[in-house]
Amino acid sequence: MATRSKEAYIKSLQDGRTVYYKGQRVTDVTSHALLKTAVEHAALEYELSEDAQHREPLTYTLPGTQERFSRYFKIPENAEDLLRRRDIIDLGTRVGGTFFLIIKEIGTDCLFALNLIGTRVDDKHGTNYHERVMRYYEYCRDNDLAMAVAQTDVKGDRSLHPHQQEHPDYYVRIVDETKDGIVVRGAKAHTTDTVCANELLVIPTRTLGPEDQEYAVAFAIPMDTKGLKLIVSPFSHTDHNTFHHPVSARHHLVESLTVFDDVLVPWERVFLKGEWDFAGPLALTFVQFHRFTAVSYKAPLLDFFVGAAELMAEANGIRRAAHVREKIVKLIAYAETVRALTKAAAWECKMLDGRIAVPDPVITNMAKWYFANNFHQHVAYLQDIAGGLLVTGPSEEDLRNPETAGYITKYLGGKKGISAEDRLKLFNLIRDLAASDIGGYNEILSIHAEGSLEAQKLTIAMEYDTKPSVEFVKGLIGLTW
Amino acid sequence: MATRSKEAYIKSLQDGRTVYYKGQRVTDVTSHALLKTAVEHAALEYELSEDAQHREPLTYTLPGTQERFSRYFKIPENAEDLLRRRDIIDLGTRVGGTFFLIIKEIGTDCLFALNLIGTRVDDKHGTNYHERVMRYYEYCRDNDLAMAVAQTDVKGDRSLHPHQQEHPDYYVRIVDETKDGIVVRGAKAHTTDTVCANELLVIPTRTLGPEDQEYAVAFAIPMDTKGLKLIVSPFSHTDHNTFHHPVSARHHLVESLTVFDDVLVPWERVFLKGEWDFAGPLALTFVQFHRFTAVSYKAPLLDFFVGAAELMAEANGIRRAAHVREKIVKLIAYAETVRALTKAAAWECKMLDGRIAVPDPVITNMAKWYFANNFHQHVAYLQDIAGGLLVTGPSEEDLRNPETAGYITKYLGGKKGISAEDRLKLFNLIRDLAASDIGGYNEILSIHAEGSLEAQKLTIAMEYDTKPSVEFVKGLIGLTW
Amino acid sequence: MATRSKEAYIKSLQDGRTVYYKGQRVTDVTSHALLKTAVEHAALEYELSEDAQHREPLTYTLPGTQERFSRYFKIPENAEDLLRRRDIIDLGTRVGGTFFLIIKEIGTDCLFALNLIGTRVDDKHGTNYHERVMRYYEYCRDNDLAMAVAQTDVKGDRSLHPHQQEHPDYYVRIVDETKDGIVVRGAKAHTTDTVCANELLVIPTRTLGPEDQEYAVAFAIPMDTKGLKLIVSPFSHTDHNTFHHPVSARHHLVESLTVFDDVLVPWERVFLKGEWDFAGPLALTFVQFHRFTAVSYKAPLLDFFVGAAELMAEANGIRRAAHVREKIVKLIAYAETVRALTKAAAWECKMLDGRIAVPDPVITNMAKWYFANNFHQHVAYLQDIAGGLLVTGPSEEDLRNPETAGYITKYLGGKKGISAEDRLKLFNLIRDLAASDIGGYNEILSIHAEGSLEAQKLTIAMEYDTKPSVEFVKGLIGLTW
Amino acid sequence: MATRSKEAYIKSLQDGRTVYYKGQRVTDVTSHALLKTAVEHAALEYELSEDAQHREPLTYTLPGTQERFSRYFKIPENAEDLLRRRDIIDLGTRVGGTFFLIIKEIGTDCLFALNLIGTRVDDKHGTNYHERVMRYYEYCRDNDLAMAVAQTDVKGDRSLHPHQQEHPDYYVRIVDETKDGIVVRGAKAHTTDTVCANELLVIPTRTLGPEDQEYAVAFAIPMDTKGLKLIVSPFSHTDHNTFHHPVSARHHLVESLTVFDDVLVPWERVFLKGEWDFAGPLALTFVQFHRFTAVSYKAPLLDFFVGAAELMAEANGIRRAAHVREKIVKLIAYAETVRALTKAAAWECKMLDGRIAVPDPVITNMAKWYFANNFHQHVAYLQDIAGGLLVTGPSEEDLRNPETAGYITKYLGGKKGISAEDRLKLFNLIRDLAASDIGGYNEILSIHAEGSLEAQKLTIAMEYDTKPSVEFVKGLIGLTW
Repeated sequence: MATRSKEAYIKSLQDGRTVYYKGQRVTDVTSHALLKTAVEHAALEYELSEDAQHREPLTYTLPGTQERFSRYFKIPENAEDLLRRRDIIDLGTRVGGTFFLIIKEIGTDCLFALNLIGTRVDDKHGTNYHERVMRYYEYCRDNDLAMAVAQTDVKGDRSLHPHQQEHPDYYVRIVDETKDGIVVRGAKAHTTDTVCANELLVIPTRTLGPEDQEYAVAFAIPMDTKGLKLIVSPFSHTDHNTFHHPVSARHHLVESLTVFDDVLVPWERVFLKGEWDFAGPLALTFVQFHRFTAVSYKAPLLDFFVGAAELMAEANGIRRAAHVREKIVKLIAYAETVRALTKAAAWECKMLDGRIAVPDPVITNMAKWYFANNFHQHVAYLQDIAGGLLVTGPSEEDLRNPETAGYITKYLGGKKGISAEDRLKLFNLIRDLAASDIGGYNEILSIHAEGSLEAQKLTIAMEYDTKPSVEFVKGLIGLTW
Repeated sequence: MATRSKEAYIKSLQDGRTVYYKGQRVTDVTSHALLKTAVEHAALEYELSEDAQHREPLTYTLPGTQERFSRYFKIPENAEDLLRRRDIIDLGTRVGGTFFLIIKEIGTDCLFALNLIGTRVDDKHGTNYHERVMRYYEYCRDNDLAMAVAQTDVKGDRSLHPHQQEHPDYYVRIVDETKDGIVVRGAKAHTTDTVCANELLVIPTRTLGPEDQEYAVAFAIPMDTKGLKLIVSPFSHTDHNTFHHPVSARHHLVESLTVFDDVLVPWERVFLKGEWDFAGPLALTFVQFHRFTAVSYKAPLLDFFVGAAELMAEANGIRRAAHVREKIVKLIAYAETVRALTKAAAWECKMLDGRIAVPDPVITNMAKWYFANNFHQHVAYLQDIAGGLLVTGPSEEDLRNPETAGYITKYLGGKKGISAEDRLKLFNLIRDLAASDIGGYNEILSIHAEGSLEAQKLTIAMEYDTKPSVEFVKGLIGLTW
Repeated sequence: MATRSKEAYIKSLQDGRTVYYKGQRVTDVTSHALLKTAVEHAALEYELSEDAQHREPLTYTLPGTQERFSRYFKIPENAEDLLRRRDIIDLGTRVGGTFFLIIKEIGTDCLFALNLIGTRVDDKHGTNYHERVMRYYEYCRDNDLAMAVAQTDVKGDRSLHPHQQEHPDYYVRIVDETKDGIVVRGAKAHTTDTVCANELLVIPTRTLGPEDQEYAVAFAIPMDTKGLKLIVSPFSHTDHNTFHHPVSARHHLVESLTVFDDVLVPWERVFLKGEWDFAGPLALTFVQFHRFTAVSYKAPLLDFFVGAAELMAEANGIRRAAHVREKIVKLIAYAETVRALTKAAAWECKMLDGRIAVPDPVITNMAKWYFANNFHQHVAYLQDIAGGLLVTGPSEEDLRNPETAGYITKYLGGKKGISAEDRLKLFNLIRDLAASDIGGYNEILSIHAEGSLEAQKLTIAMEYDTKPSVEFVKGLIGLTW
Repeated sequence: MATRSKEAYIKSLQDGRTVYYKGQRVTDVTSHALLKTAVEHAALEYELSEDAQHREPLTYTLPGTQERFSRYFKIPENAEDLLRRRDIIDLGTRVGGTFFLIIKEIGTDCLFALNLIGTRVDDKHGTNYHERVMRYYEYCRDNDLAMAVAQTDVKGDRSLHPHQQEHPDYYVRIVDETKDGIVVRGAKAHTTDTVCANELLVIPTRTLGPEDQEYAVAFAIPMDTKGLKLIVSPFSHTDHNTFHHPVSARHHLVESLTVFDDVLVPWERVFLKGEWDFAGPLALTFVQFHRFTAVSYKAPLLDFFVGAAELMAEANGIRRAAHVREKIVKLIAYAETVRALTKAAAWECKMLDGRIAVPDPVITNMAKWYFANNFHQHVAYLQDIAGGLLVTGPSEEDLRNPETAGYITKYLGGKKGISAEDRLKLFNLIRDLAASDIGGYNEILSIHAEGSLEAQKLTIAMEYDTKPSVEFVKGLIGLTW
């Protein structure tokens, strides 16, 4: 089949999955007032791939075949593959109004990691995970499936290991094993776009010790699996007024608390089972690919900062103010530093096992850390240039009401030639993405998505080899220890 | 009469004022679904003053009388008066859930400025503004009136002076003069809590030149004045679910675009009319008092950051992590630096004209600048400690739905002894104030309210005398120029 | 005797103390080429006190007497005393060309701490330290002695407690006890101006445990005590060319490694002996006073930043550049924030034991932390405004050499009216204090003197009571734990 | 000839050039006590190229020849050439103890710019500069010459254009023209390593207007040209004690005020003469190459920060402290971000005129800006980890003096196994490069060398095309202006 149509994708989500939204069971996510926006956002992935203009970059063929598969499934073998992956993530996010499309990106990040780690587990423990993973990977690729990944456990007391928790289920674990497969229990927090996916991939969230064996589990299940429950968060959406919320009324992601209520996973979909020594490597390898995805999809949001600041400065008549120019240069440097580091991570990729190119871990994590450490400050620059009307402006209804329309049209114009309505559109856009519920969501994402600030710091510390620098310094003063 | 009851205050707002909300004329702000929350928030000012516990600090007597007036009207004569003013602003804001009560603070800030500047205009131009101001001041004080202040003009092209604008009405101006008074036209942006006020004080927003004479106007009008139209912004409110929005469902401010459609102002309420050379001094003197108010009312919000971070760290089991402790110390230092600088501004106050104590302008502006320059970063620290569930958590309805309640209760607990519901309350509180529409409003306020970052920078540059430092340095190297 | 003359002070240093400088035994510090500059700098303290203009602020009388003592000895009893203490430290430092005079400041900081802790040890352990301390205090005060304080031990492996060290002498300790007193051994690092002091006060540097008992020792000795050796660091001085080093050729401090080679301390000069539970409180109480001294003496250095930036901007013709104005405002805000917080610490002082006013610990530490965290960045602003000639300019000799003088005079002038020589003076001054050996010394001091950044962070965490903030937040959402 | 020997290079500097140091005429720079260190440092360039281990990377051949030329002369034609250029700059700087070797780097940066701009001037003005430049380039390449570049004029009042200055010679200008060539007058500030160069290339420092025509001049002269005077700054050197100054006693650069006292430049060495419209482009093109050189040579200094911090943390026993680990990660991220951006600038290079690959200007300037904006803060991290002994430690002489050696050896050891002497070596190294005269020099360089912070900001603003971002944002809200 290779690539699917948007329609086929949407139809595939009507599978009886168990979804709750604001206390109600959702029978069909594709027609639910709010969730359908998320579905339509995700569907852009399929729409783009069928679009003649984008079909070439967004798909690829296997050697000896004509069939075109979604390029996200292309296992990266060199810098060029990673750069093209970056480009299509950027493209999708741009079309998605700064929200990435996610349903191919995250799943393939996970499949690449399972591919790599599978072999290693097999080598050490004599398992056959790699073969299972590859068969599952081909199934997803050939059917052009949408995937979600559940990694972050609910964790309980974050200072304790899984087996030390008050509650044994604070991390997803294997509670039984039958001839048909394993039975898992637990819950994963903030899994994104489960409601828009066909498949859910589940992997551990941290390094484990020997006493945490039952928590070392990785697997994949279809979304209509019995016992799988999605409790959707209401906090990352807004209403459908496209004047007030020009982006988020059309594009958003959906976060769920994803509960595994004694879910049976067939053996061929089990990719880790008790090999606790590989929980950490699997978690980290996924995260390695996924942080590269992260810094790839952040670029359009930062481009939005630059463009919005320029337009707002123009509309307000303050483009020539020195402090405004300084802030715009900072916004540019922020966006382009993230982008340049992302590309550098691709250019400096490492071939693992001679098979898969992984973006340089230090540079990827630096890019992500730099992005995350500086996000709020750059939001402030944009808010500063925009002005207080961001949050004190009138509603669309006032602009349409004949009693008040005249006042708004007259008084909220900006620099000569810039209408009040255009200026309000700009304010609304900036507020929508950077000073609102969605703005808050974006801020939290900057810190917590794809691993927290601390996680990136830790990864840099772990992955960076200080030896050459240490030897250089020793050489300068003749130290011999 | 002196102090009013809460009920009398609320009733006084039912005066036929012209208010629009989302395209609808609001006939009674005290019963309007959303605006009444703002009214009830403002009414806390009256409620507190009648509360036996607070009556003493919140009121004062005039020499030779027994009557108790609202302390906000007390003209500051020394550091002690300013410190007590700071204390009651802090108290009111705390009771108001981090939102200040405003309807006395801002009006008296303006009255003190009019009081000071009135005399100066009179001295130079032979007017009798000071007498008018004092009569009006006594009227407000004796009737315990709620006041709003409209200062920021809509401005059009911010790089042009008022008289250079494409549109002559981009700054409020005098368009006519009759035997009864002056007629004014224009609009002021983001005037806070006009809907909750009895009186509106209007002053210029910037320094003017001789060609801007018609823009040099200050006055006061009751809210039901003909031609005064309030177009309320819908962006600073949330719904009334107190689980999802524990503070903003109960407390908020209301911003309006305030239109003067040829409003007649009686002579005795005109406080500046064409004396363009005093527009700047009046604007700045108001702002001087008002920035002191600002840094006074910011303290409880920053205390909230500290308390929320501590509780969240405890709930998540991460209190002992070094980076968490560092962030909490930064939050403490942020809150206490703002508070200490505010007090220092009071301690170092200047007596103007031997009558009125003004907080030290350099320290006040440093406090405000420090607050504003660092707000977003400290929001980030709080969000960092809280975690992603801030914006991905389930709804109250899911917590109440028996099908899902068990999962939430089981899986979202934190450190031993801390229930999922308590943890969700904490997430909701933090999201409500620091990662949501209201969070965005707070961020914008940090930058733009009471003057932008640039305005504070400029004031410091203007008010600070570098001569002693310059002379010190010259002395070190014997420079004689 | 009360206050001494400068001459008497200098003469008192010729006491046969054991001092080494660059491998040579120094027989007389007052005539040593380099050390005499430090002595003359310290002597300004005495000179100023005898100066009619400053005698009043710099001295005080005891109730019922006429005699004037150095005001540094005045035990602070209220905010006013602390503010005056701040003022005279500021004055001395200004006269000292941004280097504080130290020989009264640090000793009295220590005496106040010994005074407070003495009583507490006596209360718990039945000792008579307070009486000893008071007798010693009166001796220093009445003879107007110059004092140094040795606190920081050499520490060895900083991750280990004293008794765990490879070497038992890495912290100063008691090695013997005789009828005449105790015998101490060890070394203290970077003790400032020992060579300029009459007396050396020694206190512990950290909290100790019961196994560290022998390290719990405080005492005072004269500088000529047998076994006391001062190994002076050569790194904090420059040569005596006052054109190249306009300040440091005239003013500097001297740091020594201070070795106690089995020094006998008479009983009446022992102020702590084995009471390990009071080592921490004594260290912290000293530091509390001393950090207040620190932020008091930093102010003139920061004023120098402001004045030098203004003059340099003028000389270079860049005063109106927006980025220059921004940097100057930041320098102003930096200086005045430190100063305002210092005063706030005085205004909010706590009375301990009803006898001694201690500057508010949280505010003092915030002031110090703010100073230290921001020092390097503000050095950068000053260097930025000054320009590259700071470190690439010609020597005085070239300016005096007729072959080259003309070129220098012609080409290194700045804005019209500003001569090359004056501009070079400015460059030299800024380099001397902020881009040189002394500049490096100042940078290190900003971080490490009076406790490191981490120490201040820790103190804030320890001293700040988060309970009110926590209760406020609990109240907002009805938490009951 | 192609590459020269170190000896031939050193001998070539004995050419009678006019050099002044501290008021004395220097007759031979290669034997002058201080300057010879700079010469020997520069000579490493020649030594390395003859070293079998490095000859391959440091040299290249021309098509069809066997001769090996210094690779610095290789005109970059693609990313690979730029990356190799980066690598050899990094190598040379590493061998040079963090100081770059400069005498090939800067000259070729300038030659590439002259090459590019020459053609453009010729195209517009019908001149034959490109041919002159190429002949001169071949002369330098074939004779393996050492070059310095003089760009920064002394500038007088920096707010005025050259022709507006009080003094017409504040920018180097043409004062006469003869049949033999042009006569130039003026002075350039802080030209680096003129004393170590054979040739001096001179170019304008800024954009000029038509009234500044006489200032539009570029040329090259040998160092022994009549009228060329070098007044060397004494501020960037230290003494030769390699214990106290382990790097700067062996390696340093020399800065001079470079005076053109009516110097005659032969026609074939004139590369711009009055074409004021190309002064700016030439200045900027040079700077573009030179900022790439800058960020290339900064890497080893930042590696030194990392290595020194690691070793110092180890020696002090604080490696496991959370704040230390955080600081080290920041130092790593700082070094590697600069390096990754440098490489990204190469990877994203632009081919100009189809002939020469120029590093991407936005990324290069971002790299430089990022480096410069963050330097002082990272110096602070290193100083923080090292501790106060950096500037308070004893001298080598004390370590050698038998009376004191024992104390130092005993007391200044660190973690078990780390001797006092090794620890002092580390302190001395860090002080030498980061808390001393040289440390100040490094700080000033970070801000001012290769263009100030403001210059980089301006270049980013100028070179970055915001249109794609602006169009993206317009598309999101349907703006049509």
